[in-house]
Amino acid sequence: MKKSIRVFSPASVSNVGPGFDLMGFALNGIGDEIEVSLSNKSGIKITKITGDNGKLPYDTEKNTATVAIKSLLAKHKIKVGLEVKISKKMGIGSGLGSSAASAVAGVAAVNELLELNLTRYQLLEHAIEGEMIASGALHADNIAPCLFGGFVLVRGYNPIDIIQIDYPKNLFCTIVYPQIEIKTCEARKILDKKIDLKNAVAQAGNAAGLITGLLTKDFSLISRSIVDWIAEPKRASLIPCYHEVREAALQNGALNCNITGSGPSMFAFSNSKLRAEAIGIAMKKAASKKRLESKIYISKINDKGPVVLK
Amino acid sequence: MKKSIRVFSPASVSNVGPGFDLMGFALNGIGDEIEVSLSNKSGIKITKITGDNGKLPYDTEKNTATVAIKSLLAKHKIKVGLEVKISKKMGIGSGLGSSAASAVAGVAAVNELLELNLTRYQLLEHAIEGEMIASGALHADNIAPCLFGGFVLVRGYNPIDIIQIDYPKNLFCTIVYPQIEIKTCEARKILDKKIDLKNAVAQAGNAAGLITGLLTKDFSLISRSIVDWIAEPKRASLIPCYHEVREAALQNGALNCNITGSGPSMFAFSNSKLRAEAIGIAMKKAASKKRLESKIYISKINDKGPVVLK
Repeated sequence: MKKSIRVFSPASVSNVGPGFDLMGFALNGIGDEIEVSLSNKSGIKITKITGDNGKLPYDTEKNTATVAIKSLLAKHKIKVGLEVKISKKMGIGSGLGSSAASAVAGVAAVNELLELNLTRYQLLEHAIEGEMIASGALHADNIAPCLFGGFVLVRGYNPIDIIQIDYPKNLFCTIVYPQIEIKTCEARKILDKKIDLKNAVAQAGNAAGLITGLLTKDFSLISRSIVDWIAEPKRASLIPCYHEVREAALQNGALNCNITGSGPSMFAFSNSKLRAEAIGIAMKKAASKKRLESKIYISKINDKGPVVLK
Repeated sequence: MKKSIRVFSPASVSNVGPGFDLMGFALNGIGDEIEVSLSNKSGIKITKITGDNGKLPYDTEKNTATVAIKSLLAKHKIKVGLEVKISKKMGIGSGLGSSAASAVAGVAAVNELLELNLTRYQLLEHAIEGEMIASGALHADNIAPCLFGGFVLVRGYNPIDIIQIDYPKNLFCTIVYPQIEIKTCEARKILDKKIDLKNAVAQAGNAAGLITGLLTKDFSLISRSIVDWIAEPKRASLIPCYHEVREAALQNGALNCNITGSGPSMFAFSNSKLRAEAIGIAMKKAASKKRLESKIYISKINDKGPVVLK
């Protein structure tokens, strides 16, 4: 048995327009790295957190990674001493599934380190437990793509039903991450608890349309279907550059553009890497006109999920 | 140019569980037959209606078929004298798209008779006009499958966006039509104007799930996704035998069962003709235990739409 293991777990785009609490996909290049080591001392201890600007708690009851790990160990009645090091390689409160990446990396690392051979479905519930600490609500639209990789539809929550959706291989995603922070739990509070019937119908139509566009590789349908009647109308106001950045993406050939998760990051789809890069430059420029610094990421959909690092 | 033409236009299942106002599919064997003939007299006249038990209006401003035809002629500035004969080969207020079948048959017949060569998309708006007279609301989830054939997703209404969805060829549908009448406009009034956010999310998840199940030929996913959080909870009470009939279908191997349109008809999916027939017998028996006579239809999805009869 190994004494220590390092796992990288990807950032993810959730909501994806019409898929509030239902859809998400994993990204390449950004995410969380977690190292879990066997320890002689009983219990779990976080020994190091880097890249978080001091924002994340060392309290293992409050950190998403260790909450997820503890849930896993409790369920399987495993008593072991562990040390956890967390290296954030992405922003916190970015809308890119930071807490999901931590929770997934944690359980994936423990699964590997202790050679538990648990399936992704078995890891899922514990990662969700961790995520709930951060967001205050049960939702799996970051956890599921982060853990399973690819584009995921969470059809329902009772029981949780994860559907992996095939997608066009030349679908590129541009992310703009304005350097402000939005807390998921705050962004949930501003949503209406009840919505108009006609908006609910429109949301379901676009959700079904987006999935159809992905499965049939119909870029025009993907473009038409990325409309959100639930979250975007409320949350756009939390992102000072939202409309300008979205317009810049569309003007530069994006299939469409919307908020990822609860923001402030925004995603734009396009059908080539060159296009995705041009869109990124335009989005960053539009954000800077509103005096917002931003980071740009270009990524295909990541179909791997968490990976063990050498 | 022909002097007269007869068109058969199919009945259809709408809503299909999670697809309220969004989804529908056409049926074989039941529908409307309309004969349109050139006349020396100007204007449109309904000369005969059969199979309606005297329920349908001869007033061309109130009959869905002639309202649709008049809309078509007005748009294309065609002045012609026409006589229309309507032969209902399905129940009115059955939940099987009776008014849609009339409206589609009307415009399809006129398109053929006058050799207008209009596309189905061009006919669509006029058929919808006709349908609105009957239902009092703009919805195309019967019109679209009736006109285009197959399984249809109406992604959105502004502008109308019709997506034809591929489906497993061994998908069979059993219809039970209890001999009571429910008016679409009445069944709309009992729906809540606002719905809980969590129900809207669940509806969108199941809508996306059902489409995924159809496209990937995943019968289990089709089965799990046929859940309605909008209409069924309100409308089931309008059908005295609803729960018993649904239970009978499930007990006999149906993938799932729900209300078609605003009822009283119910549909059940299954994966073979034999199974579909056994389900039909069980559903009819369950209805009769609640003292409701019913008709049973077994059909694959009809991929033709309206057809010209010799």
